[in-house]
Amino acid sequence: MTKHRIIYDTDPGIDDAIALVFQARHPQIELVGITSVFGNADIDTTTTNALYLASRFAPGVPVVRGAAAPLRRPPPGPIPHVHGKDALGDIERIGRVDKHEDGRDAHRFIVETVRAHPGEITLLAVGPLTNLALALKEDPAIAALVREVVVMGGAFGINGVLGNATPAAEANMHGDPDAADIVLGAPWKVSIVGLDVTHQTVMTTAFLASLRDSAGDAGRFVWDVSRFYERFHAGDGMSKGIYAHDYSAAAFVVARELYTTRSGPVRVLTEGIAAGLTIQKPDSVRASAPDWDARPSCAACIGVDSDAVLDLFARTLRN
Amino acid sequence: MTKHRIIYDTDPGIDDAIALVFQARHPQIELVGITSVFGNADIDTTTTNALYLASRFAPGVPVVRGAAAPLRRPPPGPIPHVHGKDALGDIERIGRVDKHEDGRDAHRFIVETVRAHPGEITLLAVGPLTNLALALKEDPAIAALVREVVVMGGAFGINGVLGNATPAAEANMHGDPDAADIVLGAPWKVSIVGLDVTHQTVMTTAFLASLRDSAGDAGRFVWDVSRFYERFHAGDGMSKGIYAHDYSAAAFVVARELYTTRSGPVRVLTEGIAAGLTIQKPDSVRASAPDWDARPSCAACIGVDSDAVLDLFARTLRN
Repeated sequence: MTKHRIIYDTDPGIDDAIALVFQARHPQIELVGITSVFGNADIDTTTTNALYLASRFAPGVPVVRGAAAPLRRPPPGPIPHVHGKDALGDIERIGRVDKHEDGRDAHRFIVETVRAHPGEITLLAVGPLTNLALALKEDPAIAALVREVVVMGGAFGINGVLGNATPAAEANMHGDPDAADIVLGAPWKVSIVGLDVTHQTVMTTAFLASLRDSAGDAGRFVWDVSRFYERFHAGDGMSKGIYAHDYSAAAFVVARELYTTRSGPVRVLTEGIAAGLTIQKPDSVRASAPDWDARPSCAACIGVDSDAVLDLFARTLRN
Repeated sequence: MTKHRIIYDTDPGIDDAIALVFQARHPQIELVGITSVFGNADIDTTTTNALYLASRFAPGVPVVRGAAAPLRRPPPGPIPHVHGKDALGDIERIGRVDKHEDGRDAHRFIVETVRAHPGEITLLAVGPLTNLALALKEDPAIAALVREVVVMGGAFGINGVLGNATPAAEANMHGDPDAADIVLGAPWKVSIVGLDVTHQTVMTTAFLASLRDSAGDAGRFVWDVSRFYERFHAGDGMSKGIYAHDYSAAAFVVARELYTTRSGPVRVLTEGIAAGLTIQKPDSVRASAPDWDARPSCAACIGVDSDAVLDLFARTLRN
């Protein structure tokens, strides 16, 4: 069975950390690199967290520092109420950080790794898409050499929600709308795992407690790191649990049959009160729409077998 | 039982005509005026159609000419492929047009009628919202004197669709986004009946044929006028039937219990590739969103008992 060779582009972040644990333990995934990006915290914090997470769960995997700010905007302010002051739930960190950053920039690492393994690399991007846009800018030809881009981000309203950072924009799209519009419009295969499905995929307190008690060190870590995130979700009106945002995108890579997708070009609004909003023109719509029609189709997730997605997580951590 | 006293602001239009027949026959509706607006065709055409429809189905009701163009844009081009060259399906017109336009402008008629009947008038608006915005501009105090504004327009993605004029915008919102953002932000009670529910409310060919054979002149008219519209829908990938867009808003006035609504302020994008897109911040969302929070909540339809809505139409026409 061919493995999925993944570069994990991430802004850890609690749900980023949970998704990393899954990837580190999944037998069909080979992590070939972790690239950091600003987002859930500033770039120093997310890079520090990536080094910590890799040291603990993915020791052989290089960690590469990425963009500190969006393409055309100042970096966003901190959101310690979501992920904690350290962006990993402010838990005690077990174990030594024995890794150093790879010396390259993340976008250069992406270009060089894709070029070294043509047709093999999946870019799993769960933060603002700045690193991917910079990689495309440096070497547009990589679009044809990437196996697939899987993005956690966006929302199409199907679950009643267009955004979580604003009423119109999901946080990763809002983090760098210009980069997102570039990445979703480039000539590579893109799948989008957004709020339409992640809001249907809830790791309940009971589910997380079960992992704590049955999935060893990984299960205890997922429990510990999710305590802060669960309190944030409760304050946002959700009862007892957390959305599995970033994990859902990792699950899509290895189990896309659990998702229903809709095909069509996607634009990301870059200006105004709805900056970061994702809008798809489904391929089934025949009328012309010049702002969409010149772009390649993306696969946007619009449905999910969430029980199976959660079961996949539990089985993977317990193995 | 108190009647709903309605000013019907409309751009007829086939589905506008169908909604007018319903209102004319419903025992709880008193039509106090029909105001025309550009939209499905130019203002001369929609006003001519309003005069014809009123002569045939609502003889005592004044017809008042409204706006020829959006607040800030040139008038849109014709869309004869949707509603026909005459915007009423190019059918033979039976009967005499024995009405003349009321001499006033539509927005002045709205202001004067609302002032004459404080707390009693429902504005049922199924075209671009230009007339309503102009009325508000002329006399902002009418907002407190209107019973309710019911708008056919917009979409929130729940049915998988954000627009029909573009991938982002429903036709009425797209027709005058500036007016729409004004009307949905004014301090009156607004309910929005958009594509989320109208795309679930399909008058099938069989349903329309049944009315043709059982609902007299009104039923035959609805059949005749819908032939062109049905061919358009078929070309758009729909099998055998038409969306009950404008009728759905009329049904909401008399049978709101058949709809599920979500409360929250709504913005309409006025610039860029998504101009005309409606975005709601549900009142259940606690996070601040300055571009929404200062505005009053609207009730947006997100669910419908479409069988009951269609049954209401059939019963009303057969009575």
